[in-house]
Amino acid sequence: MKPLGPIPPGFTARNGELVIGGKIVSALVKEAGGTPLFVYSRDLLDARMAALRAAMPQRLKIHYAMKANPFAALLEHMADLVDGLDIASGGELDMARKAGFLPGEISFAGPGKTDRELLAAVRAGVTLNIESAAEARRALDGGQTLGVAPRLAIRVNPDFELRGSGMKMGGGAKPFGVDQADVPALGREIVAAGARWRGLHIYTGSQALDAAAVIEMQGNVLAVAAELADAIGAGLPHLNMGGGFGIPYFDKDQPLDIAAVGAALAERFDTLPDGLQATEFAIELGRYLVGEAGVYLTRIIERKVSHGTTFLITDGGMHHQLAASGNFGTVVRRNYPVAIAGRFDAEPTDEVNVVGCLCTPLDRLADNALLPRADAGDLVAVFCAGAYGASASPSAFLGQGPAREILV
Amino acid sequence: MKPLGPIPPGFTARNGELVIGGKIVSALVKEAGGTPLFVYSRDLLDARMAALRAAMPQRLKIHYAMKANPFAALLEHMADLVDGLDIASGGELDMARKAGFLPGEISFAGPGKTDRELLAAVRAGVTLNIESAAEARRALDGGQTLGVAPRLAIRVNPDFELRGSGMKMGGGAKPFGVDQADVPALGREIVAAGARWRGLHIYTGSQALDAAAVIEMQGNVLAVAAELADAIGAGLPHLNMGGGFGIPYFDKDQPLDIAAVGAALAERFDTLPDGLQATEFAIELGRYLVGEAGVYLTRIIERKVSHGTTFLITDGGMHHQLAASGNFGTVVRRNYPVAIAGRFDAEPTDEVNVVGCLCTPLDRLADNALLPRADAGDLVAVFCAGAYGASASPSAFLGQGPAREILV
Repeated sequence: MKPLGPIPPGFTARNGELVIGGKIVSALVKEAGGTPLFVYSRDLLDARMAALRAAMPQRLKIHYAMKANPFAALLEHMADLVDGLDIASGGELDMARKAGFLPGEISFAGPGKTDRELLAAVRAGVTLNIESAAEARRALDGGQTLGVAPRLAIRVNPDFELRGSGMKMGGGAKPFGVDQADVPALGREIVAAGARWRGLHIYTGSQALDAAAVIEMQGNVLAVAAELADAIGAGLPHLNMGGGFGIPYFDKDQPLDIAAVGAALAERFDTLPDGLQATEFAIELGRYLVGEAGVYLTRIIERKVSHGTTFLITDGGMHHQLAASGNFGTVVRRNYPVAIAGRFDAEPTDEVNVVGCLCTPLDRLADNALLPRADAGDLVAVFCAGAYGASASPSAFLGQGPAREILV
Repeated sequence: MKPLGPIPPGFTARNGELVIGGKIVSALVKEAGGTPLFVYSRDLLDARMAALRAAMPQRLKIHYAMKANPFAALLEHMADLVDGLDIASGGELDMARKAGFLPGEISFAGPGKTDRELLAAVRAGVTLNIESAAEARRALDGGQTLGVAPRLAIRVNPDFELRGSGMKMGGGAKPFGVDQADVPALGREIVAAGARWRGLHIYTGSQALDAAAVIEMQGNVLAVAAELADAIGAGLPHLNMGGGFGIPYFDKDQPLDIAAVGAALAERFDTLPDGLQATEFAIELGRYLVGEAGVYLTRIIERKVSHGTTFLITDGGMHHQLAASGNFGTVVRRNYPVAIAGRFDAEPTDEVNVVGCLCTPLDRLADNALLPRADAGDLVAVFCAGAYGASASPSAFLGQGPAREILV
């Protein structure tokens, strides 16, 4: 048997059935027109944001990294909650503008920005987190073409990394950002070229659950930022301190202690070096803001026993939940939190494999999992589906097409 | 340094530049309107099919498993080349009909067929490869509702597997097919219910490069089919023997010896047991028919050096080439065949990392690879991109959208 991941807080049962946003999920499926269906909860988005605001120093701005989930209704909701938005492509810029984000709230990072994307960003007036000297020159050229001073920050590839992070994006050779040692010269060049200097972006990793690691990383970010700001000599209007706040996906994962992170950050804000006194600080979170607010619902087409092993075959799968299937940067597949939605508070009694409908052995949603008895027609809920689900999965695979999505 | 996979045969250079279908790739990119671009070659599709026909016994039908590549123009071309089509969803059924395949040529396998898909298949008159007793009853009910005798075959989960295959789909507990021991009773039930009995489907694995393993598997398939046909007692109109023919993706991979496979199969066809004398035999190939005929072209946005390591950052990436990035069922990432398209016959001199434009460390196309010198503006070609590329990748990730595709 393989354990399931922990179901995030905030989900309850009514007459045994999973409730999201005050409604039983079978009603939500009916409303949405069927399965597979992603349901995102406004209440849970709001609660997560409120808890984060309460834990973090007031001075800290909170940005949403929309790569985690660009679903239009969710994005519009996030526009009311956060202080800024981080985008990673021209396509995301278009979606962000449609969702109501203002250009001044948006910053654009990404190691491979095309000329077209740079021009669109400069024209719109969003901040570009510049990832190389060559990109800076392309952005400045774009500004000249358009007769607009581009808003430029530098994304730093710092000499340290985020310990224990799921994905490392700083420390050593990386395609991301400008090597720390090269930042001062590039910063001076950008300032001298007449750009609107916006400061620094230091993103070192994602999906960390250890508060001590995040606290250490934020200390390193502030120290490096202070040093670089001094070396550039133009002040530091804004510092994007990155993110890295993880969520529990797997058995034994413990939630990140945001109270500890916030307290340590508040202490650091009280003793800032002179060069950072006037700086606006932000963190950039994607998964942490939306991941636990989403549930993927799929219906069991068949309960099948093969050689004594039970398979619950669903109408969903890896084409909507690539990460849960174990095919998105994971070496050893572990089970996400999964439940039988109609028996949400029932005792688990059956060892089963929950699989998708695709004709490939890669299409697994839970392996050797202990769940309450379930049959054809029952709904399976996969939790932690709010981030890197629908938009990060190959929805066209085997002619399936995208899942439905609703915000409730 | 990590070796690159072998570039498939059939690609040449003109003035140093990669040629596909008689045209240099820069001209193809212009024609298609830009990068990223998948180019599929008619000539290579035809050549592969001709070689296969020459190697296999004349009696053997060759089916295309469209899950490998459902691009409309390619599918239409395949309709003229193959004897049948294997589909895995209602969505694929629609695409197949649009491409000109006739219902009698189509068979539908998949462990999680919905009632709607079963009805559509029965109505259209395609063969259903039935994967469980429950599914058989749903299909028969559908036939009654529609007043049509459904065309039914049974997909067998045999007691053996395909040695050395990349993905195992037979042997032991599986969501796919009916356990071998349960097939005779279900076969008799289907025949007695008045369905149009179509025979058996035995698919045990994919991506095998060892001819001996494929030969052994085909022997097992024929033996099991003969035994099951006898036990069902209704003859065996058709036997889908599965596929499993692999292509070389990685360094040291050797092409499958199809001459050996074909010779062994011809010998077996000459000594068939009585129960299989009248049977129509087919193999079902996806990757093998189309994989090596496709090339993914992406343009270098930037050549970047970080801490002494060179990155070629392209405008493509894992959102179109999930498998090449190492996130599709692979444990240890290895390099696909990759080339600098404009210096296709030049000596490799530079150790580089080819990455995509996505803001994630998962987005890699080649690691520590030795390639000719390349700079911003140059085209990178990723080979073996004809199967499980465009349709098997998360194209909406980070707001990127799908790649262009052309058949030349």
